[in-house]
Amino acid sequence: MDEFMGAAIAEAELGVAEGGIPIGSVIVHAGRIIGRGHNRRVQNGSPILHGEMDAFENAGRQSAQTYRECTLYTTLSPCSMCSGAILLYGIPRVIIGENRTFLGEENLLRSRGVQLTVLDDARCVQLMHEFIERSPQLWNEDIGE
Amino acid sequence: MDEFMGAAIAEAELGVAEGGIPIGSVIVHAGRIIGRGHNRRVQNGSPILHGEMDAFENAGRQSAQTYRECTLYTTLSPCSMCSGAILLYGIPRVIIGENRTFLGEENLLRSRGVQLTVLDDARCVQLMHEFIERSPQLWNEDIGE
Repeated sequence: MDEFMGAAIAEAELGVAEGGIPIGSVIVHAGRIIGRGHNRRVQNGSPILHGEMDAFENAGRQSAQTYRECTLYTTLSPCSMCSGAILLYGIPRVIIGENRTFLGEENLLRSRGVQLTVLDDARCVQLMHEFIERSPQLWNEDIGE
Repeated sequence: MDEFMGAAIAEAELGVAEGGIPIGSVIVHAGRIIGRGHNRRVQNGSPILHGEMDAFENAGRQSAQTYRECTLYTTLSPCSMCSGAILLYGIPRVIIGENRTFLGEENLLRSRGVQLTVLDDARCVQLMHEFIERSPQLWNEDIGE
């Protein structure tokens, strides 16, 4: 297991432990995590704090140069909002845990030159399968459905 | 002046008064503002709280049905992140104060069926012109440049 995807999964698991949606993310610069986060819809009543957005928020204000040297890890294929944040800040590489349970804006990201790697990680799939079975309405809300 | 664009401009002006970036937004449902916000990069040290994102956050968790009946007003053409949030939640109509000082993802939004109206409002342009002249680096940071 990649160390950084492991950290993103740990964030997703923390989300479950808090009664939330099991999606986590970390942003890595020069071999170091500068921001980590997980979905906080339930915990904070937030419609914008998806895992990736929470990682951006916790990384704080960074220079354009820093963002352009970052890799973002996320346990789930990024939705249009999180993909838009990736494009805004010019994150060049995204490592995706899985895209079986939800396929985000991967085509848009690729069309704008973002390098994507999909790991098809069994633990990421399991976390989402269990969650969607447990809370289908909450999951639909999180993806605007 | 449209009442709701007026409210978005009032949010942008509040941002200036706080020493922040002058971009404001409101989300309207059934003739009533359900969320209002302004850019909080400076005030909260936030890279994700653009005006539109702050309006989504302040509207709180809404049903998919509600989002699909909303109109979002924003003083400035929405960047990729805010456009992604608009697409995630299926907001069907966006009223844009101006797109002279920054052109966001209008083509992407239109290609996905979002109805856009650009007002080319003089006050919105003035707020951005004055801000960009005063704080060019801060503005570049806000758009990932």
